[in-house]
Amino acid sequence: MIKYSTPGFSPGLDELIKAHQIIQPWIHRTPVFTNSWFNKKSGAELFFKCENFQVSGSFKARGAVHAVFRLSAQDAARGVATHSSGNHAAALSRAAGLRNIPAYIVMPENAPSVKVNGVKNYGGIIRFCEPVLEARETGLQEIVRATGAYFIPPYNHEHIILGQASAALELMQEVPGLDIIIAPVGGGGLLSGTSLAAKRLRPDITVYGAEPEQANDAFLSFKAGHIIPANPDTIADGLRTSLGDITFGVIRSFTDDILTASEAQIISSMRDVWERMKIIIEPSCSVPLAAIASRPELFEGKKVGVILTGGNVDLDKLPWSPR
Amino acid sequence: MIKYSTPGFSPGLDELIKAHQIIQPWIHRTPVFTNSWFNKKSGAELFFKCENFQVSGSFKARGAVHAVFRLSAQDAARGVATHSSGNHAAALSRAAGLRNIPAYIVMPENAPSVKVNGVKNYGGIIRFCEPVLEARETGLQEIVRATGAYFIPPYNHEHIILGQASAALELMQEVPGLDIIIAPVGGGGLLSGTSLAAKRLRPDITVYGAEPEQANDAFLSFKAGHIIPANPDTIADGLRTSLGDITFGVIRSFTDDILTASEAQIISSMRDVWERMKIIIEPSCSVPLAAIASRPELFEGKKVGVILTGGNVDLDKLPWSPR
Repeated sequence: MIKYSTPGFSPGLDELIKAHQIIQPWIHRTPVFTNSWFNKKSGAELFFKCENFQVSGSFKARGAVHAVFRLSAQDAARGVATHSSGNHAAALSRAAGLRNIPAYIVMPENAPSVKVNGVKNYGGIIRFCEPVLEARETGLQEIVRATGAYFIPPYNHEHIILGQASAALELMQEVPGLDIIIAPVGGGGLLSGTSLAAKRLRPDITVYGAEPEQANDAFLSFKAGHIIPANPDTIADGLRTSLGDITFGVIRSFTDDILTASEAQIISSMRDVWERMKIIIEPSCSVPLAAIASRPELFEGKKVGVILTGGNVDLDKLPWSPR
Repeated sequence: MIKYSTPGFSPGLDELIKAHQIIQPWIHRTPVFTNSWFNKKSGAELFFKCENFQVSGSFKARGAVHAVFRLSAQDAARGVATHSSGNHAAALSRAAGLRNIPAYIVMPENAPSVKVNGVKNYGGIIRFCEPVLEARETGLQEIVRATGAYFIPPYNHEHIILGQASAALELMQEVPGLDIIIAPVGGGGLLSGTSLAAKRLRPDITVYGAEPEQANDAFLSFKAGHIIPANPDTIADGLRTSLGDITFGVIRSFTDDILTASEAQIISSMRDVWERMKIIIEPSCSVPLAAIASRPELFEGKKVGVILTGGNVDLDKLPWSPR
């Protein structure tokens, strides 16, 4: 149990805009979709920021590009490294490629092939390890020691948070007058950035994090006032991580509440998006919609921004049984 | 074998624009997507008109709305009818609902539930029949006789063709300077409309139809100069129909060539779209991409418009085996 005690990361709007400007040449400005079926179902007016269409297949491109491009030439020279089984690994591999430096990725040997291929496609150098946190951390330390690569963590890092904030900046620029923004929370990089961007642009907006009930560390930590690590058992593979001290500090200060959703609701919302919106989202990405379906009274009659986070899903292992 | 001999349907740009204006309030202006992976793979610059995001899940909304709204109050009063196991049935049900008239749909009793539900969602009145053409036609005749409903066929109809033409009009307005437009061909309603719109706006553009090798009636008819009915055996369920006399006449006059693609290439291209573009398309919709992959020399270095036709697919019966 880590007691939160640092003064907290609290960048101003100028810093958020600067980060957006740095990454803009290297990312897509993703579209904002609406859908009449979901509006009718929720009683709200929903605006979907489609980061599943982002380069690398998720919003992670934003933070990774920002962190890599903020490195000095000297720090960048020997490459970057991370441990990740997910979207950050692909995004970091791509960002490193843009600066023509190597990316060393420590991945668990049981990582899904879709994620391994994502890293390979972008030229990341993979080192496999046993699928336990200690092995990942040891593998990372060894690589950093051997290569001098710069460690860029997946979420608990100021430059990552500033990069992720740009999705909400774009959404609020495109859709004025949102009452609510909701984003999923795993390690908290996206929710931190989203909360900062939203409150800096419009202090009276409400920001919710959405989390699987079966990986509810952010929910528990938020209520308790200190970090309670996750004991996750969820299909939402992007949300199995626990908050870090920096992301927890930002979320405590700038997020209004954390909502949770059941596994069944997550899968059902995911399928609804595929069927109704004709777009591919991964399970983690449907958690905000599942949270809206679980607490409709919070959203009825409201103008709601929903950050759809990613579309990297194994098409051979879909989570639903035939209807 | 029907020898083509009628003078042919040959509307001018003013008629195409008028149709577009009539339907505009009732359809989505769908987005145009680009994708760097497909550009790299093809060596062409591809612009995807995303009719999978169209209301009712396919471009068929355009023709159906146009045909229904062009009916006089008297003709419309007793409703509309069609026989279809596919997207036209859902689109016609929706269009009829907009005019507050009934839509009678004759469907084969083995129609996929996703298609049946599409019709039901829009309030269409379904009459099931045996899954043979004779039963469908008999069922339709009986309904028309009993109700006085107006028959709106799925493709071989001038108002349908004029409606479908609007997708290409929008695409060419949004992306100037296309060298090529390619669209799938089943009954030929979309390809007729696309060819008319393209050539009226830009006579030197090249228009290709794309067809499954295993349902190549349009390819054979185009070469022979007369209609050769289909003997289809393809996963592309929207393209199992044969050309009609009106669509064949337009295609003969305004389409440059018909390209074909194998079943394996159709499935593989469909999966590539899901994985790379994160959008849901149905098998019929991937046939143009499969044709591009089969004849790359025709497209290299060219600016190519691709009409993505629909996204109505049964998520419980995906056509690929695990990779």
